Amino acid sequence: MEFKLLTLLCVFIHTVNCDDKPNIVLLFADDLGWGDLASYGHPTSTSPNMDKMAKEGLRFMNFYSSNPVCSPSRSSLMTGRYPSRTGIYPGVFNCGSVGGLPLNETTVAAQLKKAGYGTAIVGKWHLGVGENQQYLPTKHGFDHYTGIPYSHDMCPYYVCFYPNQSCFDHGRQGDTPCPVFQDEKIMQQPADFLTLSETYSTAATSFIHQMADKKQPFFLYMAFQHTHHPQFASKMFTNSSIRGMFGDALNELDWQVGQIFDAINEAGVSQNTFVFFTSDNGPSLVREVRGGNAGPLRCGKGTTYEGGMREPAIAWWPGKIKPGKTLELAATVDLFPTFLKLADVPIPTDRVIDGVDMSPILFENEMSQREYYIYYPSGASPEKGVYAIRHKEYKAHYYTSGTGLYSAHYPDAACKASAGTVKHDPPLLFNLNYDPGELNPLNTTESPYNEIVKTINKIKEKFEATVVWAESEIRKGDNNTAKPCAKPGCTPFPHCCTTTPSMSKTTRVL
Amino acid sequence: MEFKLLTLLCVFIHTVNCDDKPNIVLLFADDLGWGDLASYGHPTSTSPNMDKMAKEGLRFMNFYSSNPVCSPSRSSLMTGRYPSRTGIYPGVFNCGSVGGLPLNETTVAAQLKKAGYGTAIVGKWHLGVGENQQYLPTKHGFDHYTGIPYSHDMCPYYVCFYPNQSCFDHGRQGDTPCPVFQDEKIMQQPADFLTLSETYSTAATSFIHQMADKKQPFFLYMAFQHTHHPQFASKMFTNSSIRGMFGDALNELDWQVGQIFDAINEAGVSQNTFVFFTSDNGPSLVREVRGGNAGPLRCGKGTTYEGGMREPAIAWWPGKIKPGKTLELAATVDLFPTFLKLADVPIPTDRVIDGVDMSPILFENEMSQREYYIYYPSGASPEKGVYAIRHKEYKAHYYTSGTGLYSAHYPDAACKASAGTVKHDPPLLFNLNYDPGELNPLNTTESPYNEIVKTINKIKEKFEATVVWAESEIRKGDNNTAKPCAKPGCTPFPHCCTTTPSMSKTTRVL
Repeated sequence: MEFKLLTLLCVFIHTVNCDDKPNIVLLFADDLGWGDLASYGHPTSTSPNMDKMAKEGLRFMNFYSSNPVCSPSRSSLMTGRYPSRTGIYPGVFNCGSVGGLPLNETTVAAQLKKAGYGTAIVGKWHLGVGENQQYLPTKHGFDHYTGIPYSHDMCPYYVCFYPNQSCFDHGRQGDTPCPVFQDEKIMQQPADFLTLSETYSTAATSFIHQMADKKQPFFLYMAFQHTHHPQFASKMFTNSSIRGMFGDALNELDWQVGQIFDAINEAGVSQNTFVFFTSDNGPSLVREVRGGNAGPLRCGKGTTYEGGMREPAIAWWPGKIKPGKTLELAATVDLFPTFLKLADVPIPTDRVIDGVDMSPILFENEMSQREYYIYYPSGASPEKGVYAIRHKEYKAHYYTSGTGLYSAHYPDAACKASAGTVKHDPPLLFNLNYDPGELNPLNTTESPYNEIVKTINKIKEKFEATVVWAESEIRKGDNNTAKPCAKPGCTPFPHCCTTTPSMSKTTRVL
Repeated sequence: MEFKLLTLLCVFIHTVNCDDKPNIVLLFADDLGWGDLASYGHPTSTSPNMDKMAKEGLRFMNFYSSNPVCSPSRSSLMTGRYPSRTGIYPGVFNCGSVGGLPLNETTVAAQLKKAGYGTAIVGKWHLGVGENQQYLPTKHGFDHYTGIPYSHDMCPYYVCFYPNQSCFDHGRQGDTPCPVFQDEKIMQQPADFLTLSETYSTAATSFIHQMADKKQPFFLYMAFQHTHHPQFASKMFTNSSIRGMFGDALNELDWQVGQIFDAINEAGVSQNTFVFFTSDNGPSLVREVRGGNAGPLRCGKGTTYEGGMREPAIAWWPGKIKPGKTLELAATVDLFPTFLKLADVPIPTDRVIDGVDMSPILFENEMSQREYYIYYPSGASPEKGVYAIRHKEYKAHYYTSGTGLYSAHYPDAACKASAGTVKHDPPLLFNLNYDPGELNPLNTTESPYNEIVKTINKIKEKFEATVVWAESEIRKGDNNTAKPCAKPGCTPFPHCCTTTPSMSKTTRVL
């Protein structure tokens, strides 16, 4: 009640710099599966800071990313809209992609900035750089940016663990070395993986302290490179875990989480800061023991089975959010309206927003306002449209697709490329409360499941009628001129794209 | 320290009825998988009493049952010895089995009884009944027995849910109806599934109160019929869960756990009672949505993959056992020496005891004294011997076998009967800390894995040299005269084997 009153007062006195708007911190892991955290059942993961967050916060059991791969998932996180509407399909941006998140899309950062928030993103953007770097976060409502603007395996790299242990492979040799941007300038190229997480933590914690000092409400989007391939870790975390490279990367991610919580506490803003943790998509099972874990869920990254899109998710705000767990349905696409609601910022009315406000789940212990959830595949297309829909505990698959993101050993053929794309008419129906592993399809020729399919078919029809597919930004292709380079136009390109003296830190060791 | 001092005093004054010997309560679920409890990551299970136990107790991440099926698993629990030594192989006892746990085997109950403990088992025994009921628990050191002496699907049955909902199937029509024994007498036949859990709880809680009143230390072995097929539940738990029949059965199991904790508290013995919870083997995946969940582990009941034998396990003793979780290696076979140690009872020296004392893990937060763990299959044989060995984080499979305990939908061919029995030379090697799902075999032709295989080969050789295979008790076969019948010799057998008026409670509804 105190919060609501303050919010009302805040609106009443019409100040955009109102102190009482809550700070919002979004912690976003990369390729972390539903089963990867100790608080979600992993037997050998260690993550004391996230364990503490889970203990003090609300754990979601049915929280979804908005796509089983990175760029489309992040587009929904930023815009509250499915990738079909924004053109972030099929697949992901490369470092030389000429497309990006269209500038006429409104990000959560842009909306919060209008309301007086200081906004920063630290880490992986992956919504395009583009020619003239027109799609960087600073063009999308973020005051500050520190980070590699895409996956750190989209570049050549050599050192991943202290002091000079090589990475699992060497990355994309033909592309520019991984750049670390500082706003719109490349501060380091190639990125030094042994200090990258510290660089990120320093950027994040400095921002928190600066904002707190200025008494300005802030939005921090902390987009970890961890635990994506290739895993890496600083001196402190190399060989720190019993779970190998993945465990070391997770430990470093967890340390970063701890640094951010420390900063929140030290800055004295813990009473007024909402923190949310989740991940962009399921585990990358082609990476074998380094690829994360979906727990009891089927498949992983790249598929619309649960393992590809259901994610650990923890909401933290002591005194405002009751510790515990919730089975309510929610998704990354819902963070857009939720954050705007918290900040008392109007939700744009000139476009379809797919997200629904999660406040009732978070603050009132009430049911989700979300009636269904839509699963688009990594290779989304207007021709096939929606792949699956969850309605209450039921999930109907209209299409399933295997992908190449599974190792040869992986035993479930349904996840693998060899499964191809299969149309299901009637759809494959599962009860996810009974059968989270989607192993036992229900008999949809008989009651009650035939009726449930009819209900979901109607939802699909109604939803698809709202979708105007935007032109694919990813199909716009790649161009060398769009590749981030500290010395644009240098030769021999792309190897000349380096800063000094950071290259010495990552001297090729192989 | 207080406990140790009391124990020493207790030995010193030479009284077998020493009050200060701790009470021991063993809670043993049936076919409950590693992933079935909320505290082990299941998204939709509810078990408030076990959640509380988990929060206040020590959760094991690497705890094993001693076999992937029931009778051999329980034989090790009772004797501290692998089934090869006791003859409880291959498979399980039927209701008419003439064999049983040999009377020259010493159970933990018999040893504790010698030391002055009151001993009771409530629930599923499954170590034989035999002709003249020579293998009942009362012949093996238990003062009291209340329960069905085998799986409750080894009988014909009709009603499983309130008020008269039929069971998933009808059981074994040619066998005697499920009897509920009271010590050596059949008190109810057929068992009334709608009141069975209450019958069990009443027996268990009465025993606790009686012992507490007499100030006699006690050993209660609470062997739940839940969550084995066919699931059942009383009025209170029918349709109580969002996880269907399995969830209802689990809720009823959890209620029983709560009743036992309540009795421990009400009887004023909570300071001096050690409670341990685990299960006999992994989930029965042939039962589909009713069959439990192995979480991230591979396969389930019937196989020597982790899903068949790794189990949830929680040790509870506030003030003595520190809440938290442990990665130390332990197994049901270790409960025998652990319980005897707690009671200051000598461990038999006239036979090989495979269990090792878990006290260092439980009370001293120290490392396990267990150096390796042996996996025997459900179909164990002297010819093949050991199927797999875990040493530290490594597991070597010498043989793998699929079984019929998987549904047609189940996607992992390695678990299924069609996989047959495969010999692996060199063994299949996995790092369970990195790869709990056993998906990525290590390259054993190169260092360091070739050396690890050599180490495990030596362990195998050394262990197998200690094994003298006992004659199979299960191969002794079945005989109608051994089938438990309230009216022995009646006709038409077995349908005449009923008590009055309990039959009326389970009038056939189909």
